[in-house]
Parts: sequence; C-alpha cells; structure tokens
Amino acid sequence: PKIVTLPGDGIGPEVTAAAVEVLREVAPDVTIEEHAIGGGAYEDHADPFPQRTRDALKDADAALLGTVGGAHDSAWNKLPRHLRPESGLLALRRELGCYANLRPVRVLPGLEHLSPLKAEIARGVDILIVRELLGGIYFDQDRRINGDTAYNTMRYTTPEVERVAKVAFWAAEQRRGRVTSVDKANVLEVSELWRRDVQALRDRDYRSIHLNHEYVDSVAMLVVANPSRYDVILTENLFGDILSDLAAVIPGSLGVMPSASLGDGAGLFEPIHGSAPDIAGQGVANPAAAILSAGMLLRHGLKRPDAANHVDRAVAIALREHPTRDLGGKADTRTFTHAVLEALG
Amino acid sequence: PKIVTLPGDGIGPEVTAAAVEVLREVAPDVTIEEHAIGGGAYEDHADPFPQRTRDALKDADAALLGTVGGAHDSAWNKLPRHLRPESGLLALRRELGCYANLRPVRVLPGLEHLSPLKAEIARGVDILIVRELLGGIYFDQDRRINGDTAYNTMRYTTPEVERVAKVAFWAAEQRRGRVTSVDKANVLEVSELWRRDVQALRDRDYRSIHLNHEYVDSVAMLVVANPSRYDVILTENLFGDILSDLAAVIPGSLGVMPSASLGDGAGLFEPIHGSAPDIAGQGVANPAAAILSAGMLLRHGLKRPDAANHVDRAVAIALREHPTRDLGGKADTRTFTHAVLEALG
Ligand SMILES: CC(C)[C@H](C(=O)O)[C@@H](O)C(=O)O
Ligand SMILES: CC(C)[C@H](C(=O)O)[C@@H](O)C(=O)O
Repeated sequence: PKIVTLPGDGIGPEVTAAAVEVLREVAPDVTIEEHAIGGGAYEDHADPFPQRTRDALKDADAALLGTVGGAHDSAWNKLPRHLRPESGLLALRRELGCYANLRPVRVLPGLEHLSPLKAEIARGVDILIVRELLGGIYFDQDRRINGDTAYNTMRYTTPEVERVAKVAFWAAEQRRGRVTSVDKANVLEVSELWRRDVQALRDRDYRSIHLNHEYVDSVAMLVVANPSRYDVILTENLFGDILSDLAAVIPGSLGVMPSASLGDGAGLFEPIHGSAPDIAGQGVANPAAAILSAGMLLRHGLKRPDAANHVDRAVAIALREHPTRDLGGKADTRTFTHAVLEALG
Repeated sequence: PKIVTLPGDGIGPEVTAAAVEVLREVAPDVTIEEHAIGGGAYEDHADPFPQRTRDALKDADAALLGTVGGAHDSAWNKLPRHLRPESGLLALRRELGCYANLRPVRVLPGLEHLSPLKAEIARGVDILIVRELLGGIYFDQDRRINGDTAYNTMRYTTPEVERVAKVAFWAAEQRRGRVTSVDKANVLEVSELWRRDVQALRDRDYRSIHLNHEYVDSVAMLVVANPSRYDVILTENLFGDILSDLAAVIPGSLGVMPSASLGDGAGLFEPIHGSAPDIAGQGVANPAAAILSAGMLLRHGLKRPDAANHVDRAVAIALREHPTRDLGGKADTRTFTHAVLEALG
C-alpha cells in the first residue's frame, strides 16, 4: 500500500515526521511519499494544492496530513481566497471525496483534570462527531461578494445527507447505538430536508439505532453542560465545524485529538490542532494527535485494526509516562516519539 | 409610556406575571397591555403572531416577551413552518425591527460553583454578546425545499453589518472597550464582507475601540476554555444563535439570563430560557430572567437607568436570600417575586 504524507505548515512537518516514524515501525511494508500542501506549497509552487500533490494522491491508499496555515496576521491570509492555505485543504478534501469527518472526543481516565469542565462533568465523556465535509455552505458555487452585498448558499441533497448519515449509523453500531442528528429545522428548510432524510434512513435500514434530533443551539449548550448524554453526533458541515471544535476543548488538550475523513476512495487523516506557528521548528510540539491520526489511518484507511490498537495503546502509555508541555509535562517531540516507539516494543 | 407584554407559552405567563408585578412597583405610571403570541396564539387565533398583537405594538414603547413554543414532540412542531410558535417570534422581531440582540453573560461573585466550568475559569466572566437578529440565513427569501434538495441563503449587506456593529462599539465604550467580531472569513464570502465592514467602521468612527476578528470555530472553543478573554462579542445571526446559547451555560443557570433586542423602534425584552413545558403551571419557575429582562426594558426601552439599577440590585439580593430550585434553593415563583418586591423597598 501507498501513503501520501502532506506535512504542510507550522508544526505540521515535526508532528508528521513523528507519525511517519511510528508508521514505519508498525507497517514497514507501506510506501510513504511526501508532498506539498498549504502555505508552503503556495510559496514553492504558487498553488496551495499543487498538481504534483494531486497526482500523487490518485493511487494512494490514504493520506496523512499535518497542518496548514500561518499565523493570524500571516501574509497568506491576504491572498485571494483560492490561493490561501485553507483553500488547499478544502481542495484536498474535495479531491479525495472525503464526505465524512470523524472526530472522536474522549476524556481518558485520570486526565479529567486537564478539562476546563468540572471533573465530574468531564469524566467518562466519549463522543464521536460525524461531520459532513463536502456539502452545505462550504462548497456551494452559488456565492459572491460584490460591492456592499455578499451571500453564500447552504444546500444539501438527499444523497449527500444519506451517505454521511450511513457512516454515523455504522459507527453507532460499533458503539452505544445512539445517534443525535443536529439541525436548525425550526428555521431552515435545508435542515428540514436533513432531518427528514436522516429519520427516513434510520427507519428503513437502521432500526436498531436510537436516533434523536436536536437544534444546533441546544447541542452547543448540552455538549458543555452534560456531554455524557451524547454517543454519536451527526451534523452538516458548518454546524460540524463549530461543534467539533467546541467538543474538542472538553479533553483539555487539542494535542491529543486525531481525525479521519472518509469517502469512497482514499481517506484523509489529520490531527485537529492548528499549525501553531509560535512554537514551530522548536521540536516541542506534541505529536500525539498526529500519531493517533496515523492510528486511525491504520484502522480505517488500511484496515489493520491490530496495528491501530497497538499504536493507540503505545500513545496512552507515552502520555502517562512522558507527557508533553501542553499536558503539564516536560517531554519534547523527540522524547515523546521515542516513548511511543519504545512502548510499541 | 406603553408596554406590551406577550406572555406566550409554557412558563412564559408565570414569569411574565412576576416581571409585571415588579414593573408596576418601580414604574407605576406605565400602561401595560397584554397580548397573544406563539402556540397559544395559534390555538386561539390560528396565527402565532395575530394581527391584534401586531396592531398593539405599533404605539408601544417596549415589548416584554415571556417564552414561546411547546415540548419537543408538541403537535405545534408539525404545523407548516409559518404557523409554528417560532414563526411568531421571528415575525415579532421583524415587525419591531430589532436588529441587535444583546445578551449579557455574567458569572456573579459567589455563584461560580453553579458553572459547569471549573470555578477558576468561570470566575469573573463578563461578556456581552451582540447578535445580528434580522439578517443572514434566518430571513433571506431565497430559500426552498423541493423534493430531494433544499437550500437557504446567508446574505448580508453593508448597512445591515454597520447598524449592528455600531451597537457593539457603543456597548464596548460603556464597558472595557474591546470587541471581538466573529466570522468564517476563511471560507465564506459573506464573512469577508462582514469582516471588512466591521473593520472599516471601527477605523472610521470608533478608533478608541480595540477590535479583533476571530473564526467562529475558534470562538466556540475559547468561550469555554478561556471566557475571560472576551468583552463584547459581535456576531451575525446564525453564529450568534449558537454562541449566545453556548455562552449562556457558563453561569450555570439559564434562569437568571435576560436579553434585549434593539432596533430603531420599540425594543423587545425577554428571558433567554425556553418555555419549559415540563414545569409550566406549577408555580416553581424561576422568574429572575424575566424580571432582569424588565430591568433591561427600563434601561434600554424607557431610558430609566435608576429604576433599572434598582431592579438589578433587588434581584441580586433575592437570588442570594431566596434561591429558586434551579439554583439549588427552595423558593417558588411567588416567594422569589416577593423577595424582589421586598428588596425594592
Ligand atoms: C481551515 C478551515 C477551512 C477548516 C474548516 O472550517 O473546515 C477547519 O476549521 C477544520 O475544521 O478543519
Ligand atoms: C426559537 C428560535 C427561532 C430562536 C432563534 O434561533 O433565533 C431561538 O433559538 C433564539 O435564539 O432566540
């Protein structure tokens, strides 16, 4: 199998290098090819998603992404939209056809104290957010800024709703069997369609799943006030952008949170943290999220659950024994990565 | 002056009655007229925002709203969209031209323990959310559900952005002088316009205000992880719906949170909690939010800051001495209201 790595900007290269070391250890037969994306790709190739990267992905089995984007005041943010680092990311998602973004949010036993929530609220939280990633207001072509007016269109079709809902139902079957579908059906027609189609699919093909529907504003409240009530949360793209970042604060460190984006072809695996330009190049970034993303790649991209479990366990051990600075510990990127490799055996 | 009260559904009538008692005490010269809205108005007049209510508002100086809507599985939610309780609320906002929704989020000293956040994070939080209330994806006429496709349009114009931004800058001048404007300018054209216009207005007319721009997903994280970094948060309608409910969980009880919606005419004042049909009619609802909304009505609607301060102080005393059940106390609606009236003098 062939994996394409896309280290990207900021701390992306450091944490991706760590994840690659781990992949080489547990899947030595895999071919790994590195390519450019994001702001760096714009600098070198005048394109945040260069043709060469696009080509390399055509026969890849999975892609491992680092991070893209610069500091808040980076010159990249002043480029025309289609040249900005984020456009490279969006083009990558579209190219791979990854319509379902999976974000596990888990508070590990003994790490409740890291959460901004009270320990009794954070304890035992185990949510999977399934976010639609290729539709809605993100990609719709009916969009414009023109003088003193601008608009974007939030659009969904039944096939788009159904394919991502299937992923949520499938995931719930492996978990506690409950899906909460998010919408704003009291205001939006597009949510009315979403709710109707998700319910119909459940009634047709997933009778064993307990499905309920909640408004996005209510979910935003309850994810904080009572996160344990959720198992799988299914949401459209924009609501998912907000809710998945919101939920990601619960464990208390973005440094340990991986993600997988799945579609009909190669999957895309990436840590959810940003490019952290303030600490880039110093060798102190926490590579746990990137390594756990490699774990998700092994599980969902290469269908190697044993290797994936192996990686998950090794990261848990390293987090306990060699916590990085963002977790209140002292380990740098190197030390942490070695701890993982050691725990791998 | 004339005030129209709109008690609405669920616990709306109980908490509005409490607020009216307080208003009669501190502003005995005011005429108060009660009218129908929401699900009850649909039952009685086949319209969630009846013509008679609309007419009564024409010469009102302010409106005091209770709550609208039924239980999650209420038959009202199955009506055609324009007959549902929420449509009455949206029509009311539009009728009054209330384009700026103000939601103070304050953790009162000594009440940090009610927050789902750790006390050291909740302590001292004092945010004002200014949400655009008449534009964006809520009201745009370019919307449709048709067979297996549906869409809504998020649209803003410069005048719409500027009028609400002025409210945020004005409010910041009375506070700590900082405005965070929320958008998703890395993806949406409509956010690009929003960011550009807010910045231009600041540079032109509000040089003393410190303005920064943050992405909505980042604000969702930071409002929970580090709420003290915010003073005034300025946001468009849909992001504001999500963020203002999210921020509302910080104080730990929706029962104490008022809101004001301002425009060029009469303002609309309402508690932010829902209609709580499960406890409606039992006389146990916490009327603090409704009474504090009456306080905002005195301040912003009738320009009577002394009376408003008087009410705020009396509610603070009553909360300390006679907390309601949602706050871990024993007081019912009557007891709490009497405690407020007593504290008033
Ligand atoms: C960078 C941005 C375009 C992206 C998104 O909004 O999807 C990011 O916030 C994410 O959630 O992966
Ligand atoms: C009931 C609903 C239409 C309304 C909104 O979304 O504006 C509510 O959530 C609010 O925030 O006041």
